[in-house]
Amino acid sequence: MPGAKEVTIVEVGPRDGFQNLAAFIPTERKAEIIEKLAEAGVKKIEFSSFVHPKWIPQLADAADLYRLIKGRPGLELRALIPNEKGLERAIESGVKEITWVVGATDSGNTANLNMTTEQSLEIIRRVGKRVHGAGVKLYGAIAYALGDPVEGDVPLARLIHVIEVFRSIGDTAISLADSIGIASPQKIRDTIPGLFRAFPDARWSIHLHNILGLGIANALAAWECGVTVFESSIAGLGGCPYAPYPGGNVATEELVYMFNKLGVSTGIDLDRLIAARDWVRSIVGEKPPKQVGHPEGT
Amino acid sequence: MPGAKEVTIVEVGPRDGFQNLAAFIPTERKAEIIEKLAEAGVKKIEFSSFVHPKWIPQLADAADLYRLIKGRPGLELRALIPNEKGLERAIESGVKEITWVVGATDSGNTANLNMTTEQSLEIIRRVGKRVHGAGVKLYGAIAYALGDPVEGDVPLARLIHVIEVFRSIGDTAISLADSIGIASPQKIRDTIPGLFRAFPDARWSIHLHNILGLGIANALAAWECGVTVFESSIAGLGGCPYAPYPGGNVATEELVYMFNKLGVSTGIDLDRLIAARDWVRSIVGEKPPKQVGHPEGT
Repeated sequence: MPGAKEVTIVEVGPRDGFQNLAAFIPTERKAEIIEKLAEAGVKKIEFSSFVHPKWIPQLADAADLYRLIKGRPGLELRALIPNEKGLERAIESGVKEITWVVGATDSGNTANLNMTTEQSLEIIRRVGKRVHGAGVKLYGAIAYALGDPVEGDVPLARLIHVIEVFRSIGDTAISLADSIGIASPQKIRDTIPGLFRAFPDARWSIHLHNILGLGIANALAAWECGVTVFESSIAGLGGCPYAPYPGGNVATEELVYMFNKLGVSTGIDLDRLIAARDWVRSIVGEKPPKQVGHPEGT
Repeated sequence: MPGAKEVTIVEVGPRDGFQNLAAFIPTERKAEIIEKLAEAGVKKIEFSSFVHPKWIPQLADAADLYRLIKGRPGLELRALIPNEKGLERAIESGVKEITWVVGATDSGNTANLNMTTEQSLEIIRRVGKRVHGAGVKLYGAIAYALGDPVEGDVPLARLIHVIEVFRSIGDTAISLADSIGIASPQKIRDTIPGLFRAFPDARWSIHLHNILGLGIANALAAWECGVTVFESSIAGLGGCPYAPYPGGNVATEELVYMFNKLGVSTGIDLDRLIAARDWVRSIVGEKPPKQVGHPEGT
């Protein structure tokens, strides 16, 4: 069943793609990359994360970067936050759109944030409503929503629980992240319709990674399930080449290409996007091969 | 709609993947690669092409290679042929399974074989029946079946015409090739059900390439349309890095990974396949990045 004739791409490369790059990209360069992406027609960009600079030095300049890029008309800029401290820093920096990420599984959330899912949700319950709507738009991102490398399958009830907390603090759009790229088209189909039924008024996006290039097939399945917002990374940047689960994000240019072929509008000019991609590559260096290591390490 | 619970992979890397590699791979090495793939559970391999050695020196050793590998039990070995001369050489070499390739479009067939589609079909009409069944199994491969870079869309009637010729010489299984990777899931769905209806008794396979990583999504769509035989290339080798249409074949390991995730049996052990892939890479060198150049050059 074909999906919507118009979809939205959220470019997450400057956050999810850059965070694993060892060599610091100067803030001005990051701003130029974002400008090029915007010129190609990208209208929503997750530009950085207010994570502790000690964890991810590459994104230590989130506030400075925001100052450089915030003036561009028609460009929505989001920052990721992992915790309350990050939320405060983002708000102090004047950021108006914030993605709050929680792992669906305790092992995933502990690996990312050093606390259980419930501990993260408790913080969201406590402070979410206060910031939500007060000039700040919150997005709820669920990491490991489509599978966890340790815990395996994530029950729908667990996703519904996390989403209920996000929805209890306001009209939070929900991003379902296959953080390490272990979803399948079948898993997408087994998950998304049930969530849509459980939260008929919610807005959704999907955030897909690759282990062995399956992200684009998962995107197709998600589109057919009715998803209209797709998070992706220019040049497929993302993922850690040293991790047991290699494989980057779904590439923005792949998504735009697919949607072009399907007659689905993204508002993005593929020519200019490819030029931006090549330019990004010239700055960050060629990305590691997409198909490295072993899927799922088993 | 889910497809079959069991599919067959035809490994075409030693032909479609190797043919673009400039440095000659010694015949013994090729035989070792095929052995490793067979050990991983691959049961059907297109091992070379009886094309004129002047055109593709890499495959000049097709007959010698066949002598080295033909004894392995349970392994079906096919050779590609582009014309009558290649057919004769293949038969002289004792090859029992032959893929005869014809371009669906005149521009495609002229680029590949320096003759029109009808001229190729005339040869098939003339000699096909004689060899078909006489100890030799013929497969009919249609290049540019899902789109041509010059002529654009390929009408269903043209495919049906080519298939009718292939079917007129015997029970020829048909391979639909997206030779440069310009198909979309929608194009797959617009094409395959009509062909299945037109030839309800035929056997089919699909041969997919990438421009920007869409091959795996096309494979998913084809599987959902009922295709059960997939041609792919280990490590995604294939395509020419210097061509205006870069992008290799769908990688065998990607396909096996996808089908594993979908609970579909391929009979291939992904662990051993990945080991074989790494070993192939060590011999042929790292393949060029999957996402190079510009899709469709426009």
